[in-house]
Amino acid sequence: MIELAVFGAGRIGQVHALNAAAHPSVRLKYIVDPVASEHRDHLAIQTHAVLCEPEVVFADPDVTGVIIASSTDTHAKLLLRAARAGKAVFCEKPVSLDFSTVVDVTSKVEKSGIACLLGFQRRYDPDFRLIRERIVSGQAGRLEHIVMHTRDPSPPPRVYVERSGGMFRDQAIHDFDMARYLLGEEIAIVYAAGNSLIDPEIKAAGDIDTAMITLTSVSGRFVQMINCRRAPFGYDQRLEALCSNEVLYVENRPQRGVMIADANGFHSSTPMSYFIERFADAYRAEMHAFVDMIDNGSKPLAGIRDGLEAQRLAEAAIVSMKTGSPVRISHDWHP
Amino acid sequence: MIELAVFGAGRIGQVHALNAAAHPSVRLKYIVDPVASEHRDHLAIQTHAVLCEPEVVFADPDVTGVIIASSTDTHAKLLLRAARAGKAVFCEKPVSLDFSTVVDVTSKVEKSGIACLLGFQRRYDPDFRLIRERIVSGQAGRLEHIVMHTRDPSPPPRVYVERSGGMFRDQAIHDFDMARYLLGEEIAIVYAAGNSLIDPEIKAAGDIDTAMITLTSVSGRFVQMINCRRAPFGYDQRLEALCSNEVLYVENRPQRGVMIADANGFHSSTPMSYFIERFADAYRAEMHAFVDMIDNGSKPLAGIRDGLEAQRLAEAAIVSMKTGSPVRISHDWHP
Amino acid sequence: MIELAVFGAGRIGQVHALNAAAHPSVRLKYIVDPVASEHRDHLAIQTHAVLCEPEVVFADPDVTGVIIASSTDTHAKLLLRAARAGKAVFCEKPVSLDFSTVVDVTSKVEKSGIACLLGFQRRYDPDFRLIRERIVSGQAGRLEHIVMHTRDPSPPPRVYVERSGGMFRDQAIHDFDMARYLLGEEIAIVYAAGNSLIDPEIKAAGDIDTAMITLTSVSGRFVQMINCRRAPFGYDQRLEALCSNEVLYVENRPQRGVMIADANGFHSSTPMSYFIERFADAYRAEMHAFVDMIDNGSKPLAGIRDGLEAQRLAEAAIVSMKTGSPVRISHDWHP
Amino acid sequence: MIELAVFGAGRIGQVHALNAAAHPSVRLKYIVDPVASEHRDHLAIQTHAVLCEPEVVFADPDVTGVIIASSTDTHAKLLLRAARAGKAVFCEKPVSLDFSTVVDVTSKVEKSGIACLLGFQRRYDPDFRLIRERIVSGQAGRLEHIVMHTRDPSPPPRVYVERSGGMFRDQAIHDFDMARYLLGEEIAIVYAAGNSLIDPEIKAAGDIDTAMITLTSVSGRFVQMINCRRAPFGYDQRLEALCSNEVLYVENRPQRGVMIADANGFHSSTPMSYFIERFADAYRAEMHAFVDMIDNGSKPLAGIRDGLEAQRLAEAAIVSMKTGSPVRISHDWHP
Repeated sequence: MIELAVFGAGRIGQVHALNAAAHPSVRLKYIVDPVASEHRDHLAIQTHAVLCEPEVVFADPDVTGVIIASSTDTHAKLLLRAARAGKAVFCEKPVSLDFSTVVDVTSKVEKSGIACLLGFQRRYDPDFRLIRERIVSGQAGRLEHIVMHTRDPSPPPRVYVERSGGMFRDQAIHDFDMARYLLGEEIAIVYAAGNSLIDPEIKAAGDIDTAMITLTSVSGRFVQMINCRRAPFGYDQRLEALCSNEVLYVENRPQRGVMIADANGFHSSTPMSYFIERFADAYRAEMHAFVDMIDNGSKPLAGIRDGLEAQRLAEAAIVSMKTGSPVRISHDWHP
Repeated sequence: MIELAVFGAGRIGQVHALNAAAHPSVRLKYIVDPVASEHRDHLAIQTHAVLCEPEVVFADPDVTGVIIASSTDTHAKLLLRAARAGKAVFCEKPVSLDFSTVVDVTSKVEKSGIACLLGFQRRYDPDFRLIRERIVSGQAGRLEHIVMHTRDPSPPPRVYVERSGGMFRDQAIHDFDMARYLLGEEIAIVYAAGNSLIDPEIKAAGDIDTAMITLTSVSGRFVQMINCRRAPFGYDQRLEALCSNEVLYVENRPQRGVMIADANGFHSSTPMSYFIERFADAYRAEMHAFVDMIDNGSKPLAGIRDGLEAQRLAEAAIVSMKTGSPVRISHDWHP
Repeated sequence: MIELAVFGAGRIGQVHALNAAAHPSVRLKYIVDPVASEHRDHLAIQTHAVLCEPEVVFADPDVTGVIIASSTDTHAKLLLRAARAGKAVFCEKPVSLDFSTVVDVTSKVEKSGIACLLGFQRRYDPDFRLIRERIVSGQAGRLEHIVMHTRDPSPPPRVYVERSGGMFRDQAIHDFDMARYLLGEEIAIVYAAGNSLIDPEIKAAGDIDTAMITLTSVSGRFVQMINCRRAPFGYDQRLEALCSNEVLYVENRPQRGVMIADANGFHSSTPMSYFIERFADAYRAEMHAFVDMIDNGSKPLAGIRDGLEAQRLAEAAIVSMKTGSPVRISHDWHP
Repeated sequence: MIELAVFGAGRIGQVHALNAAAHPSVRLKYIVDPVASEHRDHLAIQTHAVLCEPEVVFADPDVTGVIIASSTDTHAKLLLRAARAGKAVFCEKPVSLDFSTVVDVTSKVEKSGIACLLGFQRRYDPDFRLIRERIVSGQAGRLEHIVMHTRDPSPPPRVYVERSGGMFRDQAIHDFDMARYLLGEEIAIVYAAGNSLIDPEIKAAGDIDTAMITLTSVSGRFVQMINCRRAPFGYDQRLEALCSNEVLYVENRPQRGVMIADANGFHSSTPMSYFIERFADAYRAEMHAFVDMIDNGSKPLAGIRDGLEAQRLAEAAIVSMKTGSPVRISHDWHP
């Protein structure tokens, strides 16, 4: 039995805690969340885990891995403590909203030698995995360009927006990661055009809700991102990869398998409501990968450096949007 | 140039006249329709054809083929005159609503030696042809059962129903034909359950608007027909053939390639409005086949005997529905 | 906490045991399975349940409900014991393959006054529920006819077929149930045509693998069933309900949300592999309904009499197929 | 009867000549094509038109309109001659590959007062029209961004590429036009990234085969274009318009309404092969609009100035791609 602890009993913390507890070779020993709440206590009962202070976790030699799902501003500190304590980490992205902190923590975590899985869950989704296998195996032919749609069901509240680091660091970060993952190479040029067209609250918070981002890879291939804080029909999460033999599509997954036809036409269901539902399988697979990483030393699909590289693209996109010019990324320099 | 004449300037007569006139090796010489009407005269102008009496057509030695698209009660007589005059015939189904007349005319036409194409246009539709090729070539594997949906957009007016011969002879006849065509063998047992559930006018006319018909072939394979005089969304014309390797589907063809998504889901277009639109390609292909039959002696996909055999199934279905028992069809006897 | 016991640790027993154990207000106390096996023991560990003899369950006053998921031949006896012990029952269908036993047990269970939920899980599936709500609420208009497809991914092994009671009692029983459920009235006439077209082993076992079944309801509406022991693409489980305002479709649920396009066209995924996957949500909802029935006295969507009535249709279908004639069902007589 | 002449008997000339000849109130009097060919002569026979020199057309006072479907390098000269002769013009795009010529000819044609329809046929396609109506009527809500895919079935031959003016002027021009048409305002910023990833012949010709183009409108809304000279499955012509209430999609139109299912999944047909097939309805509607423009003075959906404005965007895209920087378009200056 592998003994684990979860930091954070919020929405994503609950997902990870329940997946950990349901894993046949895991004992979820601790839940750490400083804020008393009904859902925190209920989670402890459901998972038979003990509520405790962070010190208890890091001092317990039987705990071999920690899951960091607490608020973003705690990630860096917890990562460094885990590194010092020699515990494997499953960390939700981002490491920090401050890029220099990301660089610093990444460097220290890598030096510490601990194993670290970064929560780019989309890499674990069976649909995205199928696409990638088809590219990597050569079956699809040469990948030439990618088009990605990420649209949230509705704009987040202003208080969330203000702490989010902005749409590029908060939402588009998953697309930046997927771009690198599927291309298998780094990005050379980032052009981002963005605006606040939907929600005046987002504008007031100094953020945008709509963006078109064009990435050109080192070898000259393209990734086009369409990012938005709202789609009238709900969560829009799609990808299209044009290869020389095939075009590969990840489509939205409908909530219901029901079609209704009437005099106006054929009507089918909205997609799964948001990422927690859409990526439920991915989160389960991620937990299995984390356990396998601890147990067998397997490499995770996304590590801490992938977080750094995706965030580098988000930083470039922010600069591009502000200056109105494409940003060229040097790949000579590495932190 | 092949010279042709069309009998009937109604809806289907117009389709055939225009297709004949547009055929590069056809001269549409005559249109025959006893009822003066604007659309008749307009059709003559559009096609550069002459309006005339039937006698003129049958007496003109340059006319090698006639298209019978007049009202059903004239088909038998015109077929027999064409047979006597030695003209190739393209006849709309049915030969007659009276089965003994069908038997008699079929026999006489066959003896006359004239070539005859019967207007089961669905055999000429590219989608249905693709399905059949896939079965005949063996690629789909052994055909085991077929499910067919035929639903009209809305019930026909009572006056039409009263002269139609009833839903089995008028509408389901195309499905009976397709069943035989795809199976490549005859039907041994017909069970039909029908009722008037939709339109009180149809009930008043002594007809039905909904029927489930099960056909068992001589070798024990099945065809299930679902026939109806209305679908809320319009014309429903589908087929599904379960074979040992593949299931083959002919689907409805949407009117528009537009999808609209909103908070209620995804909305796509109604199908093409009715058979004239849905089978426009098939009618064109039928005319080409008719010309090729005259020109090169090629065999049409459907001949006059196919009309007789399909109608035999309609007659059996009527008996089955009235008696509540399946009807066994003897294939020893042939007219 | 409601304390429950599960009889049977096979495939469906595992589903129910895990759902019971995951239910927040249930303690799964006992698992009963006379056959020692690794999966039985593993299930006990996973669910923290105790393996025991039937006597222990029925003698334990804290156990308020039992889940009968053992082999079909044990259902009747366990139902009667539960009735005597006054325990609520969640019983997998069928009560017995012998119809007179079903009649007898149903009568005794009803007299005993225990609450009983019968495992027609499809009634609990969110897609089928949505269809039914749309009919019951009147939104879809008047239901006129239903077409159902049930095709297994591949023929079951001969040993299964021989003990199954035949395709009508084993597989089509769910469709008979859904027919009654959606129509909201009883069936008056059953016509069944069946044959063994796919698997010689099924023929050798005296069973069929393909059937077309037409049901006519007391008020003259229709249900068309298409049942088969194989579909080349996997599990085919669909329904189409034609109502006066809408046609309602339950469609297959694809395994993957991936589409691949190449020079041959667009290729999408096979459906979920079989009923355990397809109806995972329904099984969970069923367990919640069982708990709610015990806790709050709510009526289950399917009770023991629904099992009897569905089986009556299966018996009629068998007679119809053997005699070649439709069977009329009297609704004056009730066991 | 309106008397018309067609210049050019090539692929698109044939489409227009046949549509003109089939129009009930048109007499196609002349076809002008200096190159003798079988298809030119066959077109004359099919349409009952006379082959003649350009002089004959412009000197014939009965000819009220001319259709310019000859090679691109003849457009400007023919337009000016038509302007001098006072004939209405239906001109295929572009007016010229040289932008200053476009500016000059547009100015002269506008001063001449002749009516001019420019061949942006996509504006006449019923699917694109439906989308636009939904935006203009306000039903879809406020348009916020557009994503367009235009991918040819396969790269054109090098000789075509060399005379085409490049992918932006030749192919993407239709998307530039559609962007302006749907937005209902002008474009302020153009960013284009392009490369030759597919066909070395295109690279050798100095052109590109893949491009991502981002347009920012004067009011700050976005249009994202994905343009490519190949899609593995054939012609890819789609649009997606995100509005505040609805997302509107124009989808590809499949060639066949056939689906085939096997152990690998569900397989549907490739799209209509290329623009001639895909936009057949649009070309017919365009001819009707041309006739209506002559007959009733109605305004065409696209005029000569729309050609100039679309081409201005193509020119800006070329500069953007070459310099690697977005290009800002001034709307103060007008030719």
